[in-house]
Amino acid sequence: MKILILGGDGYLGWPTAMHLSARGHDVACVDNYLRRNLCSNEDGDPLFPTPRLPERASIWKSVSGKDVQVFIGDLTQWDFVSEVFRAFTPDAIVHYAEQPSAPYSMLSRRAASLTLANNLQTTANCVFAVREFCPQAQIVKLGTMGEYGTPNIDIEEGWLDVEHKGRRQRFLYPRQASSLYHTTKIMDTDMLWFYVRTWGLAVTDLMQGPVYGITTQESGSDERLMPFFNYDELFGTVLNRFLVQAVAGVPLTVYGSGKQIRGYLNIIDTVNCVRLALEKPAGPGELRVFNQLTETFDVLTLADMVQKAGNAMNLDVRVQHIPNPRKEAEEHYYNPAYTGLADLGLKPTLLTDEILRSMLQLVLKHKASIRPQSIFRGVKWA
Amino acid sequence: MKILILGGDGYLGWPTAMHLSARGHDVACVDNYLRRNLCSNEDGDPLFPTPRLPERASIWKSVSGKDVQVFIGDLTQWDFVSEVFRAFTPDAIVHYAEQPSAPYSMLSRRAASLTLANNLQTTANCVFAVREFCPQAQIVKLGTMGEYGTPNIDIEEGWLDVEHKGRRQRFLYPRQASSLYHTTKIMDTDMLWFYVRTWGLAVTDLMQGPVYGITTQESGSDERLMPFFNYDELFGTVLNRFLVQAVAGVPLTVYGSGKQIRGYLNIIDTVNCVRLALEKPAGPGELRVFNQLTETFDVLTLADMVQKAGNAMNLDVRVQHIPNPRKEAEEHYYNPAYTGLADLGLKPTLLTDEILRSMLQLVLKHKASIRPQSIFRGVKWA
Repeated sequence: MKILILGGDGYLGWPTAMHLSARGHDVACVDNYLRRNLCSNEDGDPLFPTPRLPERASIWKSVSGKDVQVFIGDLTQWDFVSEVFRAFTPDAIVHYAEQPSAPYSMLSRRAASLTLANNLQTTANCVFAVREFCPQAQIVKLGTMGEYGTPNIDIEEGWLDVEHKGRRQRFLYPRQASSLYHTTKIMDTDMLWFYVRTWGLAVTDLMQGPVYGITTQESGSDERLMPFFNYDELFGTVLNRFLVQAVAGVPLTVYGSGKQIRGYLNIIDTVNCVRLALEKPAGPGELRVFNQLTETFDVLTLADMVQKAGNAMNLDVRVQHIPNPRKEAEEHYYNPAYTGLADLGLKPTLLTDEILRSMLQLVLKHKASIRPQSIFRGVKWA
Repeated sequence: MKILILGGDGYLGWPTAMHLSARGHDVACVDNYLRRNLCSNEDGDPLFPTPRLPERASIWKSVSGKDVQVFIGDLTQWDFVSEVFRAFTPDAIVHYAEQPSAPYSMLSRRAASLTLANNLQTTANCVFAVREFCPQAQIVKLGTMGEYGTPNIDIEEGWLDVEHKGRRQRFLYPRQASSLYHTTKIMDTDMLWFYVRTWGLAVTDLMQGPVYGITTQESGSDERLMPFFNYDELFGTVLNRFLVQAVAGVPLTVYGSGKQIRGYLNIIDTVNCVRLALEKPAGPGELRVFNQLTETFDVLTLADMVQKAGNAMNLDVRVQHIPNPRKEAEEHYYNPAYTGLADLGLKPTLLTDEILRSMLQLVLKHKASIRPQSIFRGVKWA
């Protein structure tokens, strides 16, 4: 299958590219390094340097014998989009090309505007490009569990059957998110659902929880093939950030009570989920939605697990509750369904002490590079 | 009350400005003539010329003695937005500043991109400006009944109480629209709802049905004070278009079966609804939603009413069913609630033969200017 990965330089984009390439697919990556540049502008460098895409592709070629094409440019610009889709007419598109940070989207008016314009325009261009250049191609879009928020009823996989005054209707599961970033993903869903119905697109929306991890089968222990490992408040996902705080000897920053429950998954599962969705695609005119998580934790439990694993390695790990800078429910019902990807064949890689230990070991190796002042800055929601 | 009208040059913007000004409010209008320019680019001139905003404001001053300030510029540009909000710090904002045509949004990739970028960025800038310059100000936003689509259950006013597996949650009423334009209004709602919850904004969302009419109490019979009367497929609303077809002697173009039911209202009611919402505002942190319609008709009934009124005036009015260029349900359940604005005091101006006759008379006066070839072009949804 010819697979075009939009946002192929990202935390998930590059591991996905290698994984699909290793499985025999013909892969191309597109990126404009937006995330690299934002991280750099906001003083949030990753734990260790990550080569740019052409160099990664060349390293990957040397270890796997496989080619990954690279296109560098801005997917909000149609002239570039059309060039890419003419040069590499894909059978499938994996769309990661979004500003992915909730706190970044709340940082300032300009950051919010950038998030809104970038995320919506890349999604629109992806739709228009499929329509114009490869109308049969499927789209696999990364959504987020954050679109649902924390409703007081079970979170179903994408859809909700409503009975109201004796009549019935199936709706997209109602979404209400807790950051502008997450809200742009709701808007993406609105847009994709409209064009699925109108133009018969085949779309899978993967509603993903926070991802942790750094190594995949394809990266092995070669750090040059690993994704960005950001640990700052803006671009580091929560568990990755806790691991760096544990090693740096600064307290793990738990927001408020820490009772916020989310669904998590290992980056190894992310790449498998995306592959499974691609290999058993949605049909024309279908918006297929999967909730992409493998287990749920509250934040305090995650912090406790990191503390325990760290202390077992003679790190002095402390946990600190700080006033929640976000506006979110701290105590809430949370019961998401997530059977669809398991039905497609996903074998979950659950969080274990062993996994925490191996991640802590990798972080320890780079302990000298950690810049503790960049970990927490306290972006306030209101 | 100091009221800033975004999109004050539009079909509804200018009549709203006069109405609020006549009621003693201090009104300013902002516009970049986007709609004028799009109409002109797409060869869809209104039935008779409409002076630009400064001239309208000056005519209004001469007939009413009241000042309406005018700002000409692009609300997607923050430097302009901040200039306007510094110069005229409003107590309330009425936000009409959107590309308002469903068929235009389906015309081409560029038209879709323009609609998306313009509508979302103006709404975002409106939110950011309130936050920065006038955090207590209320926002009255024009939504559309089209956001709901045609679900198989009753359409409530903005919210839906869901019972699911023995638990309950109130959600924004799920929305699924039938054009990209209508979808951008859903996205607006998503964004406003997020910032209402996060920043405590006071927002009223008026979910309006198709509007008809041309004269209001304030315009009287002075055509220079009347709004655009577009009759082309892109920018003319359906009843206005039928009236022009009736006078021009071309068949009324009914799409498909004509069984599509929508909720309609007279432009006189629109300006009253907006005023009522402003004068009894939403509270801080409240997203208040009203369904803004006064009666429902299917399209064929509207066509029949125009035919009857026209034939009574010795026009030879024919009705033609044409293949539906849109993708929409033609036979569907439709039962929207619309009691909220009546509770605020709206006295509906229902559609009568008398109203149709007086509109036909106005159109007849300009019969020589009608360009029949611009009425229907058949923009296809798929």
